[in-house]
Amino acid sequence: MQQADLLIFPEWLFTAHPSENSPYGECHSDYGVAVKDGQIVAIAPSNEIKAQWQSDNSETHPGKILLPGFVNTHCHSAMTLLRGIANDLPLMEWLEGHIWPAEGTHVNKQFVYDGTLLAAAEMLRCGTTCFNDMYFFPEATLKAGLQAGMRTSAGIIAIDFPSAYAQSPREYLDKGLDTLSRYKDKPNAKMMLAPHAPYTVGDELFAEIAALSTEHDLGIHVHLHETAFEVASAVDQNGKRPFQRLLDLGVLNSKTLAVHMTQLTDDEIQQCSDLGVNVAHCPESNLKLASGFSPTTALTRAGANVCIGTDGAASNNDLDILSELRSASLLAKAQSQDATALNAAQTLQMATYNGAKAIGWEDKTGSLHLGKSADMQLIDLNRLETQPCYDPVAQVVYSASRDQITDVWCRGEALMRDRTLKTLNEAELLATANAWHEKIRA
Amino acid sequence: MQQADLLIFPEWLFTAHPSENSPYGECHSDYGVAVKDGQIVAIAPSNEIKAQWQSDNSETHPGKILLPGFVNTHCHSAMTLLRGIANDLPLMEWLEGHIWPAEGTHVNKQFVYDGTLLAAAEMLRCGTTCFNDMYFFPEATLKAGLQAGMRTSAGIIAIDFPSAYAQSPREYLDKGLDTLSRYKDKPNAKMMLAPHAPYTVGDELFAEIAALSTEHDLGIHVHLHETAFEVASAVDQNGKRPFQRLLDLGVLNSKTLAVHMTQLTDDEIQQCSDLGVNVAHCPESNLKLASGFSPTTALTRAGANVCIGTDGAASNNDLDILSELRSASLLAKAQSQDATALNAAQTLQMATYNGAKAIGWEDKTGSLHLGKSADMQLIDLNRLETQPCYDPVAQVVYSASRDQITDVWCRGEALMRDRTLKTLNEAELLATANAWHEKIRA
Repeated sequence: MQQADLLIFPEWLFTAHPSENSPYGECHSDYGVAVKDGQIVAIAPSNEIKAQWQSDNSETHPGKILLPGFVNTHCHSAMTLLRGIANDLPLMEWLEGHIWPAEGTHVNKQFVYDGTLLAAAEMLRCGTTCFNDMYFFPEATLKAGLQAGMRTSAGIIAIDFPSAYAQSPREYLDKGLDTLSRYKDKPNAKMMLAPHAPYTVGDELFAEIAALSTEHDLGIHVHLHETAFEVASAVDQNGKRPFQRLLDLGVLNSKTLAVHMTQLTDDEIQQCSDLGVNVAHCPESNLKLASGFSPTTALTRAGANVCIGTDGAASNNDLDILSELRSASLLAKAQSQDATALNAAQTLQMATYNGAKAIGWEDKTGSLHLGKSADMQLIDLNRLETQPCYDPVAQVVYSASRDQITDVWCRGEALMRDRTLKTLNEAELLATANAWHEKIRA
Repeated sequence: MQQADLLIFPEWLFTAHPSENSPYGECHSDYGVAVKDGQIVAIAPSNEIKAQWQSDNSETHPGKILLPGFVNTHCHSAMTLLRGIANDLPLMEWLEGHIWPAEGTHVNKQFVYDGTLLAAAEMLRCGTTCFNDMYFFPEATLKAGLQAGMRTSAGIIAIDFPSAYAQSPREYLDKGLDTLSRYKDKPNAKMMLAPHAPYTVGDELFAEIAALSTEHDLGIHVHLHETAFEVASAVDQNGKRPFQRLLDLGVLNSKTLAVHMTQLTDDEIQQCSDLGVNVAHCPESNLKLASGFSPTTALTRAGANVCIGTDGAASNNDLDILSELRSASLLAKAQSQDATALNAAQTLQMATYNGAKAIGWEDKTGSLHLGKSADMQLIDLNRLETQPCYDPVAQVVYSASRDQITDVWCRGEALMRDRTLKTLNEAELLATANAWHEKIRA
């Protein structure tokens, strides 16, 4: 008998890992998982696990399904402190009249740290173990994310305009690279280059980003083709669509995560597949800001890697990736007029395995697979809202809500047990949120 | 001092009742509500309530918002027992290969009673106090809904095809009218004529329905223009769009609730407004079955009464009207390319006041208003997912989830307190759901 740190026997288990039988992952009944030193050391039928492994911590979970932790591939975590500050407004009025003034007045290192901690709590409570962020003061993002125990990928933010964080493109990059040097060896930390968007970053800065990506082997996280207006203005200004411009500047390749992508020609869809450009789909943000519909059915059928992001809570207005992936599936069906588009398993894989791949962390997370990190969540399907249960995977995608997520682990560490956060203090977070609320609305 | 049965002082209160100041309803802080004999007998600033009313049951709810109970204007409650039995399939394959065979084998009075009880529990847990149903054995629907303590509007189902419930159009109508005669004086009961759809109901039956509607002063609940295929086939067959056919047959007027309506010309939109035809929008069902997008922004701007339904849990796969109304708002914005479409207050009003109006129950329910029934819910916004809270109405629509609904009353009777159902037994319902699951999947 071998000794494990933890044995889990859920009623069902969904791997999200591509296999010969099932490209989107397999759903097993009566399976178990053994965890040791933060890793999945066995995943097999329960009787095999029980024959080979023993542990002081052996748990059986009838009625629950074990999944990989969700990977939220696009958020601005700290903006949680601005959740719902302005709604039902056109994008530019929302940005110029509300968000930018609030950010201009309030954003500093403490804001980012406090906002990210609140965001981390919300994300853990909806099964997310890994997030990829883009915001000012990424060091504060990393500090908060690591304190929560989550896999945290922070952006080396780069933008042509000054902010409270940095005054020049050079300073943005230098500060980000300095943060990278201090965090790169921490197992839960990661960074991507994060040029904000084609309309806020000039050619020179994009070329520098492309060079840094090669030099440091860093991914690139960028907003792209969010709205028809963005594309039309760029064509007016440069004679090129932003996709083509970034392609010409060497920014679009398999290390790139392009966010939103609501406006794509058939050629651009094919190029995403050919070049391996990863697409972060944020359906609820695109809907709420009336940005458009990303052609996710066409992208996935062309072979592109599509993953899910929540965007910031200021636009959306939450970080609930379970709701977001449901919206992604439902929307794809209606938009492509094909009810078979983005089926339940495929959608769960988008929010897990595909997300890990998109940010270059697929060797560690995103699926329940031998040798990967034990980044996992349990969802209780034995609730009135998810009974009867003919198909547990469909039930997770189409019927479950975030409160049914009971337990979350990252690298084998329990971050939530029975809805109670283990690394964060809810009462303190609520008090901090309230203090910021008083300050910001003043 | 006057004596009330219940005094409630929430942190905020949203009326959903049109007023001179605010067509979609008003949100007040520091207000209270007095309830007596099931009715709202006062709604005013807290200090005024406290000066005039006393009660042994006086409750203060910091951090919570009081809303009218939701009105789910379109569901097939009993189909909850088939929740998730088939997914990600085209409509006809889903119906012919899965739903109709399961219904053919299993639907009987007990199925409808058990399924509706399960549905009622799910609906209460998401703040719904009133539902409008269409299914076989409506007497069983009424029995279950009334047992749950909910306002129950059951359909006098009519269809040209035989079923376990009735063999002929005449038998459908006779059975429904018999049920009506036995339930019409019960305060929580109501019926609407429910011809299934233009493609399952012939001209003769529709004409009879129109006559019965006048004779008994009954509303008409009908699926209409669900898909482009439905409209195109009808045009092929009758040379008319179903909307025009029903108009010619005298079925479309202010007592009609037309469900789905994804395919509408500008003329038809204007006619809905001119004739007062009520539209039940079921966004998540339309998405999941790839049926299309109902033009809700155009309908509401034309002045039509648009309300919200969940459709059955077999297609959707839940009865979560809070999620449904969020989808309605988000979808309207993207579809009309206008982020100001269906704002938060307007969307809450669609799921409450407009729903009550659509089924002819606006004198009793759908808003917090003097003299109306005390059909109410409390939503706890003091959660990590809804903090900070700059705008409680936006927070309900864009950030809250069903588990934040803590308490529900109908006609002043507490149906849920602190998430515990008072009229239904959750453990028994889960056991019943499980028994049906074993039987159906066999």
